[in-house]
Amino acid sequence: MQQEQASPEVQARVQASFERQGLMGHLGARIAHIAPGRVHIVLPCRPEVTQQNGYFHAGATSAIADSAGGYAAFTLFPENSSVLTVEYKINLLAPAGGDHIEAVGAVVKSGRTLTVCQLEVFGVQSGQRSLVATGQQTLICVNARPEE
Amino acid sequence: MQQEQASPEVQARVQASFERQGLMGHLGARIAHIAPGRVHIVLPCRPEVTQQNGYFHAGATSAIADSAGGYAAFTLFPENSSVLTVEYKINLLAPAGGDHIEAVGAVVKSGRTLTVCQLEVFGVQSGQRSLVATGQQTLICVNARPEE
Amino acid sequence: MQQEQASPEVQARVQASFERQGLMGHLGARIAHIAPGRVHIVLPCRPEVTQQNGYFHAGATSAIADSAGGYAAFTLFPENSSVLTVEYKINLLAPAGGDHIEAVGAVVKSGRTLTVCQLEVFGVQSGQRSLVATGQQTLICVNARPEE
Amino acid sequence: MQQEQASPEVQARVQASFERQGLMGHLGARIAHIAPGRVHIVLPCRPEVTQQNGYFHAGATSAIADSAGGYAAFTLFPENSSVLTVEYKINLLAPAGGDHIEAVGAVVKSGRTLTVCQLEVFGVQSGQRSLVATGQQTLICVNARPEE
Repeated sequence: MQQEQASPEVQARVQASFERQGLMGHLGARIAHIAPGRVHIVLPCRPEVTQQNGYFHAGATSAIADSAGGYAAFTLFPENSSVLTVEYKINLLAPAGGDHIEAVGAVVKSGRTLTVCQLEVFGVQSGQRSLVATGQQTLICVNARPEE
Repeated sequence: MQQEQASPEVQARVQASFERQGLMGHLGARIAHIAPGRVHIVLPCRPEVTQQNGYFHAGATSAIADSAGGYAAFTLFPENSSVLTVEYKINLLAPAGGDHIEAVGAVVKSGRTLTVCQLEVFGVQSGQRSLVATGQQTLICVNARPEE
Repeated sequence: MQQEQASPEVQARVQASFERQGLMGHLGARIAHIAPGRVHIVLPCRPEVTQQNGYFHAGATSAIADSAGGYAAFTLFPENSSVLTVEYKINLLAPAGGDHIEAVGAVVKSGRTLTVCQLEVFGVQSGQRSLVATGQQTLICVNARPEE
Repeated sequence: MQQEQASPEVQARVQASFERQGLMGHLGARIAHIAPGRVHIVLPCRPEVTQQNGYFHAGATSAIADSAGGYAAFTLFPENSSVLTVEYKINLLAPAGGDHIEAVGAVVKSGRTLTVCQLEVFGVQSGQRSLVATGQQTLICVNARPEE
């Protein structure tokens, strides 16, 4: 795992946006790492994020994967721009269990308008990681201010 | 919109499973309709389900879409079986706003092992509906009891 | 099935572009219908388009589905613009057999930059149609001439 | 790039199935490498595989990506079983040009029933490779002989 970090400015931009996402706080998710083109988000296990059999709900798994990819793209965007998810696809490879899950969004291709990210989610139990979901996401860079 | 309803037994099975999904209760989602092969789930707007600009978070939109498709498949499964999402893909067509959003999962093809659903999510404001997301999902039917 | 037709100008633009697609001619595909926001492409069965069991190859099924969606989007684009597929996802629902297959691409959401289409492919045997594949596609509108 | 090779038996099974795919021969595709859980397929550039601007058609790119993933899964299947594509999703990252394109299908998760592959397609010009498409695919293992 690369330990590279994004610049303090970029980290602050990502963190500030993340804190405005009511859903992330409500789920109990937090950002674990911000590198240029790669963001990790961690979600601890608790009953509020489960499906009917006690595993992490695919919706919770997807939510942090989507945010991780979105912020990974965002780290490479110019200032005063914003990011929107165009679409994503995710395969749930195995029941997602563990102390927490960790989503890693990583930019595969960064274009002027569109960015494509790879999404991976790991279940982590006592420090052991196993891949529980893998996805692919398309994002669009939009000007944060209305067109003038 | 068809008003057909699933049998009371199927409705009870779906409702009971839904109530075990900690995430759905935590988000504030509820089932609005259960027809054979089609389930509607509603999620009211509140800060706990938003992204950074105050719209519904793609993760919340996807979570109820995934559950709606999963239960739509489940309505057609034999008793004592369970449903797992294999994968899904979703396009976020427009910022999801409104009083609430409503996800509709509908079975397109029901096979012995795999089921394919279409997913649609509508933003509803003062009774006016607009399509905010569309998706496609693959599910697998598994025996609820461990293999004997 | 709606019988609406696109304007003669749009039909001519689509047909001219289609004829420049070497792959479509090589496969033996032809356009069957051009409506505003909806295009049908037909591919007759012959050994050159099959997989190992004699059914239509998923690659052939996907190729005409992709082109049908692309041209469906293109019918709504301004003159002097061009269409590129950003991504698509397709479920192969059943082995694709029959005298021919027919792909229908239909615009779900037409934006200034991005368009989303639904894709359906039918196997047709002696006039009977059955759905063999269903998909979802994102396209981008680009200026056909280099930026000046 | 790993140079590991599948056993001669597995290579022969894959090659024999590939040769029965009428579409692959018709496009001019050939298998370039067969490793356990990873298969490479090469498609030379010629007018018969292009779209309207002279690049490889997304349908051709997808067709070899789909076959590469399918055979990658197949290398890990038991004898007397067969492989079917359930679904795939592909992002076209850049216009696909070059002397040839090369698709690499690699197994991410191999289950008893379902297998998930990652798909990558590279454009190759004078030995230089660039990623032109990336995808994700779900496959199912079926018994080659009818159930007895």
